Amino acid sequence: MSQPTRPTDAPAPGEFGLIARHFKRPGLARPVQVALGIGDDCALLTPTPGHQLAISSDMLVQGRHFFPDVDPASLGHKALAVNLSDLAAMGASPLGFTLALALPEIDDVWLAAFASGLFGLAEAHACPLVGGDTTRGPLNICVTVFGEVRPDRALRRDAARPGHDIYLSGCTGEARLALALMQNTSWATENTTENALKQVRTRLERPSPRLAMGQALAAITQGSSPIAAIDISDGVAGDLGHILAASGTGAELHWAELPVAPALAHLPRAWQEECLLRGGDDYELVFTASPGHRDAIVAAAKACHTSLHRIGQITAGPGLTLLDPSGQRTALVTRGFDHFA
Amino acid sequence: MSQPTRPTDAPAPGEFGLIARHFKRPGLARPVQVALGIGDDCALLTPTPGHQLAISSDMLVQGRHFFPDVDPASLGHKALAVNLSDLAAMGASPLGFTLALALPEIDDVWLAAFASGLFGLAEAHACPLVGGDTTRGPLNICVTVFGEVRPDRALRRDAARPGHDIYLSGCTGEARLALALMQNTSWATENTTENALKQVRTRLERPSPRLAMGQALAAITQGSSPIAAIDISDGVAGDLGHILAASGTGAELHWAELPVAPALAHLPRAWQEECLLRGGDDYELVFTASPGHRDAIVAAAKACHTSLHRIGQITAGPGLTLLDPSGQRTALVTRGFDHFA
Repeated sequence: MSQPTRPTDAPAPGEFGLIARHFKRPGLARPVQVALGIGDDCALLTPTPGHQLAISSDMLVQGRHFFPDVDPASLGHKALAVNLSDLAAMGASPLGFTLALALPEIDDVWLAAFASGLFGLAEAHACPLVGGDTTRGPLNICVTVFGEVRPDRALRRDAARPGHDIYLSGCTGEARLALALMQNTSWATENTTENALKQVRTRLERPSPRLAMGQALAAITQGSSPIAAIDISDGVAGDLGHILAASGTGAELHWAELPVAPALAHLPRAWQEECLLRGGDDYELVFTASPGHRDAIVAAAKACHTSLHRIGQITAGPGLTLLDPSGQRTALVTRGFDHFA
Repeated sequence: MSQPTRPTDAPAPGEFGLIARHFKRPGLARPVQVALGIGDDCALLTPTPGHQLAISSDMLVQGRHFFPDVDPASLGHKALAVNLSDLAAMGASPLGFTLALALPEIDDVWLAAFASGLFGLAEAHACPLVGGDTTRGPLNICVTVFGEVRPDRALRRDAARPGHDIYLSGCTGEARLALALMQNTSWATENTTENALKQVRTRLERPSPRLAMGQALAAITQGSSPIAAIDISDGVAGDLGHILAASGTGAELHWAELPVAPALAHLPRAWQEECLLRGGDDYELVFTASPGHRDAIVAAAKACHTSLHRIGQITAGPGLTLLDPSGQRTALVTRGFDHFA
């Protein structure tokens, strides 16, 4: 069932034709590690000796992760981006991905656009499609991505230590604002300029996985002074909370250090907080590192053309606290977005 | 988004609680190759040095692959079985799998049964769940499985050679008959005994992936005399057709050599042919090997307690032909089941 090939050269309008037309890209440069791609029972990968394989899987469902009228090219981009972002958070380099796709019908125009967005990002990161499955059903996109990382270089969630700095790549909240504007939510429309949606929509629909930054951090991390990282899909508070839980630590975030994108500048404080700390879909990295690594981390971010902010510290005591410039401390809830809440 | 862990010890009724309750099995023996399982951005696997990673992904959708009232334990079993069957067809040994699950709601009774079927098979093959994703949506199950195989031992589809024997593990058609009986189809109900469904239902709902046989074949295959294999999800004719297309060969099947399960014995010939050659969901292996390997293959099947039939030969000329005991030859269509046909 996995990687069907067309048994004949006759025109194939159905499932096998769909794969041949839209999802076979023989021209896509693929890492030498991909020994066998689409067209057998399994894909075969040869990881670089001494490396571990990093694996992540995400499922995107209409109405939960995207609107029914979403631009299919953006959807193709995002389906892969959210998975590559998990590799970035592990410090891994992409090797390839599988795509399982349930479609209510074959719509070649839609599929061509979806494939263009998907392969555009795949090509940018030399991450080829190696296999998958197509079937008829309510629209559902499941991508599983494979990368590799040296075992001593993986950015694990359990590596935060009291006294370590907390960093954020880029800035958060624009995707959350875009969602609110697209839903015509009053707190968003009443506190932003007319062209705000134009400014932030790309952040929601075409997130950029921070692969270069993740790999640069993997080059810095050391056994005695490890770096913990996670990508932000469910908000800074929720995702940082996963690091705290895995590491058995707490953290203090400094409100004054959190970057605020221009489109969010005039939101009331409560909604700024919502966007910056609890908005999801940012796909930035939040990571922790020893103060001894500060120079190396700043240099790495510069080399990756990634803006970076040091936004707080890991604490020995539990819980996540937000420190205001006034000195006031507020406890933050660390639970992330729950699809079944 | 990938491998959520619960950030607190408080009771969690939602997504993270669901994972903790049903899909964390710390007790499941896992291969030493699994360095990091559920609970980080990615799972980390360490393939055995000198081995390739074999990957396959299948998506199961309600109404296409299973009935709405399917026994959830059987569904959990089958979701993994169809993927393990792809590893078997590559000659690979399982390492682990990811599960992405869209659920219309959280139904703990259903989920507990689903997990019991899933983990029952996973434990039988020492194949742990290493990560995944859960979300709300129309019921959809996407499993991606990882195995490993030595590069020179993989059972590729392009390895069939003219003059090679064609073998079938077990027998085919019982799953197709079960489907017809469950749908009350007259050709099935009128030509079978009363307890036929009881005899064949397991074949449809709890297929046994032929992992031991696949690995035994991988131990036999040689560069100069390779073995080609595929698992039968879409019928012998369609799936053998993939081998023929990849190898640039044809084949002749001998009707008299095809095993007929007792429940199918009294079907009219046309429906026997439908079940044996075009019925899907068998998850047996069809494979090709040089006549020089006959003794080794028979011994391997015996060691695996797998019944085996030599059902035809690979031909230099194209096409798939069925040879009757009378000497009559019929051309078979090799296209497999098409979800969009």
